Amino acid sequence: MKNDAPQDLLNQAAQSHHQPDVRVPITVAYGDGIGPEIMDATLKVLMAAGAQVAPETIEIGEKLYQAGHSSGIAPESWDSLRRTRVFLKAPITTPSGGGYKSLNVTIRKTLGLYANVRPCVSYAPFVATQHPKLNLVIVRENEEDLYAGIEHRQTDEVYQCLKLITRPGCEKIVRYAFEYARANGRKKVTCMTKDNIMKMTDGLFHKVFDEMAADYPDIQAEHMIIDIGAARLATRPELFDVIVTPNLYGDILSDIAAEMTGSVGLAGSANIGEHVAMFEAIHGSAPDIAGRGVANPSGLLLGAVMMLVHIGQTEVAAKIHNAWLCALEDGLTTADLQGQTPPAAGTAGAANTSPAPLGTQAFADAVIARLGRQPQQFKTVSYQQASTPRALEVTAPLYVRRPASHKTLVGVDMFVHQSALSAEDLAGRLQQCSPTGWALQMITNRGVKVWPGGYPETFCTDHWRCRFVAATENGVITQRDIVALMGALTDAGVDVIKTENLCAFDGVNGFALGQGQ
Amino acid sequence: MKNDAPQDLLNQAAQSHHQPDVRVPITVAYGDGIGPEIMDATLKVLMAAGAQVAPETIEIGEKLYQAGHSSGIAPESWDSLRRTRVFLKAPITTPSGGGYKSLNVTIRKTLGLYANVRPCVSYAPFVATQHPKLNLVIVRENEEDLYAGIEHRQTDEVYQCLKLITRPGCEKIVRYAFEYARANGRKKVTCMTKDNIMKMTDGLFHKVFDEMAADYPDIQAEHMIIDIGAARLATRPELFDVIVTPNLYGDILSDIAAEMTGSVGLAGSANIGEHVAMFEAIHGSAPDIAGRGVANPSGLLLGAVMMLVHIGQTEVAAKIHNAWLCALEDGLTTADLQGQTPPAAGTAGAANTSPAPLGTQAFADAVIARLGRQPQQFKTVSYQQASTPRALEVTAPLYVRRPASHKTLVGVDMFVHQSALSAEDLAGRLQQCSPTGWALQMITNRGVKVWPGGYPETFCTDHWRCRFVAATENGVITQRDIVALMGALTDAGVDVIKTENLCAFDGVNGFALGQGQ
Repeated sequence: MKNDAPQDLLNQAAQSHHQPDVRVPITVAYGDGIGPEIMDATLKVLMAAGAQVAPETIEIGEKLYQAGHSSGIAPESWDSLRRTRVFLKAPITTPSGGGYKSLNVTIRKTLGLYANVRPCVSYAPFVATQHPKLNLVIVRENEEDLYAGIEHRQTDEVYQCLKLITRPGCEKIVRYAFEYARANGRKKVTCMTKDNIMKMTDGLFHKVFDEMAADYPDIQAEHMIIDIGAARLATRPELFDVIVTPNLYGDILSDIAAEMTGSVGLAGSANIGEHVAMFEAIHGSAPDIAGRGVANPSGLLLGAVMMLVHIGQTEVAAKIHNAWLCALEDGLTTADLQGQTPPAAGTAGAANTSPAPLGTQAFADAVIARLGRQPQQFKTVSYQQASTPRALEVTAPLYVRRPASHKTLVGVDMFVHQSALSAEDLAGRLQQCSPTGWALQMITNRGVKVWPGGYPETFCTDHWRCRFVAATENGVITQRDIVALMGALTDAGVDVIKTENLCAFDGVNGFALGQGQ
Repeated sequence: MKNDAPQDLLNQAAQSHHQPDVRVPITVAYGDGIGPEIMDATLKVLMAAGAQVAPETIEIGEKLYQAGHSSGIAPESWDSLRRTRVFLKAPITTPSGGGYKSLNVTIRKTLGLYANVRPCVSYAPFVATQHPKLNLVIVRENEEDLYAGIEHRQTDEVYQCLKLITRPGCEKIVRYAFEYARANGRKKVTCMTKDNIMKMTDGLFHKVFDEMAADYPDIQAEHMIIDIGAARLATRPELFDVIVTPNLYGDILSDIAAEMTGSVGLAGSANIGEHVAMFEAIHGSAPDIAGRGVANPSGLLLGAVMMLVHIGQTEVAAKIHNAWLCALEDGLTTADLQGQTPPAAGTAGAANTSPAPLGTQAFADAVIARLGRQPQQFKTVSYQQASTPRALEVTAPLYVRRPASHKTLVGVDMFVHQSALSAEDLAGRLQQCSPTGWALQMITNRGVKVWPGGYPETFCTDHWRCRFVAATENGVITQRDIVALMGALTDAGVDVIKTENLCAFDGVNGFALGQGQ
């Protein structure tokens, strides 16, 4: 662990306030490729702006992979992350070839980073885009949904992935989205789900959103179905401010929005956990231009601005952000943006007279030279002063566990692998062998009811969901009855491949009806 | 059942070929709102162009809902659909209030319509759009994926939806996409999945795509991850031709692409099944302008063109399509497009001199007057002559069932509802009560391994997946062993809420490892 941010600047920052103790320790990693250059430039701007941070460095990336650490990070580095709880990370190179795990996935899972935060902003006319008014933030749930990676091949023909949506997962991400909106001066949060189809899982996300929105009367709250929302985003992005959404939708939306800004080289992002938060650029390590001092430090710098807001240093965050906007307005660019500018003739002249592209350090110096200035064309950025130094970690309890519901077992879905029989024949067989107390209620195939009363045109796979309930209206089902049913079916040669209990929670059925039921 | 297409035109079409028997019976429904007007106009154009179809009419929509048919269709109408196997459907109005089922969902499920086909085309400069070169077709799987509607609340905190992807489902939709591309003169099919995350389910879709692409050397085949693909679609739609994708992604992409064309009023769509196919406009019944004769018949007309291609009448389909393009080029519009045109000064002049908007019938007459003409600015449309009258139903076997794999049971995932214990304590308890022959291999929470060797920061819900395998390396597991394990856990008071068998198929494990395993 060594501290290798420019020492003179660090000392200067500390001395100028005569309070060396207020500096917030942060973990930084210089990464691979252009990483070291842009990290140097970024830290230089932070120090010049008076950020009260004390960086300590860890090694990650290529060297670590090659030293045999399959996730690109050494075990002792976790100590620094757990101590500082704030991680500013430059891009890394994952060596080609198998056996290497994604460092980001490892960090996200290990430290429980539940929120991926991706601001997407257009900088027209300085960066060419069809959507000059795009200025929004995607807050994406990062831990659950279909990305829990629970997949099973169940029959010859059928493969399954579990989509899990949890109340704590929803509460944490929705709470974060509203807290983020407030801290970042955003006015509206749009929730997107597909709850007209997935009434229970996406329905929970939407319900939690509505519940929590009530705590933020200063923030406008709205919900859109994801297909319509995505179409609006792609055509009228100026309608949006903050978007909060489950993992998969957020993955798709954040790539759409970033691409629409015209440059993915200017965007930072954050991964937020209850214990640790990580800040970075969204671009990669660009090994082809590494070491030449020409890389654009903007993505990492804006990631660092997010970090400063996160740790409550909102004034210095705004100061850097506004200085950076001034540099753009002055037509200053790095090589990556030269192909981007200028836009069509007749628009603002800055781009037409833009000087030769600046190198990484020169661009950083240009930002430093503008510290304290306000942008003229872009809106001045301001961040709401947080009430505590680590605002977003503590202003609201992210999740309070509730007392357990009264759960009652009302039946079971037995999933059967069977290729030769019709639904009618399968039903007959199941009825014959199921023990007293149980009644077969319906059979579905890919969700469509095929017994009783199916349609001849329904194509049936070899994967049948057979719903059993108590044979009498007031019959009580216990878990032992399910064991007995599974045993009886098995003894009769029925190939039971999975089960799903049917429960009521506080009297409300916790399962969907079959389509056509 | 009455035949009420303009009788003189029908007779004329029949007589002009002296072959009244070659007319293909089709079922038509005039629907609600503007439905009757645009259906009249559409059939008039079809007959004038020499389409060899014999429409028979069924009633659907508002009147049927109000007569107590909860799906908006009378039982006897299915006879017509099953006989003609081709359905040209005008938009309907679903009455407000609960208890009404979607007619489209009912028809899709009843008749097994596995493919939703949505051509999206920009008509710049005649319709304003930011994407003048957009011309693509989304072929969306329509029966499975997360839309099977199988959801369960499993614990106090956790809700689950099953994503099912099947080999027959993948083969049918991918086969259809390539056949469609060939019949419609399309050159490339792009498959989009998220198989870097969902390696088994989306992995199957991608694998089937690669397998089938080999049968179509004349069509370029490519695959994109859905997030990147959606971002490309939203920014550079001209990169795409035909896109084939699972249900959820297709839902999102088709709304994005339709919106990007600038008008959803000009698009038709098809829902294709093995037995029946349905063709319609993508817009609704617009009750506010019903009966005034001002509605644009273009969406339904282009749906009818898709129908003609589907039944092998490709020449007359192209004739109508080209005449319609000529009408657009001549600046002819209906009222809905008047706000849309003209685009910026300096582009093609047609729009600037466009006459007053035409009514529904006058627009149809204008198309009829242009039958036989080729467009000058737009590319002339041509459809490949199909080898049989019902090309897309029969040129390739959609799915051939394979012999069963050799399936071996290698373990089981027991899902447990438990809120008070740590992973360590839960593991101890499970190990204590599991019968001889079983070993607890791991526990995950939301997919992240928490035992053995979890991380202190991992947030745990009350929903645990506990993976059991044979205690000895060569131990054989049977379904009866699973019943015994479930029984033993139940007797010990463990709340088992679901099971998933772990199987190998022909020696290949049919389950994913835990994240961190």
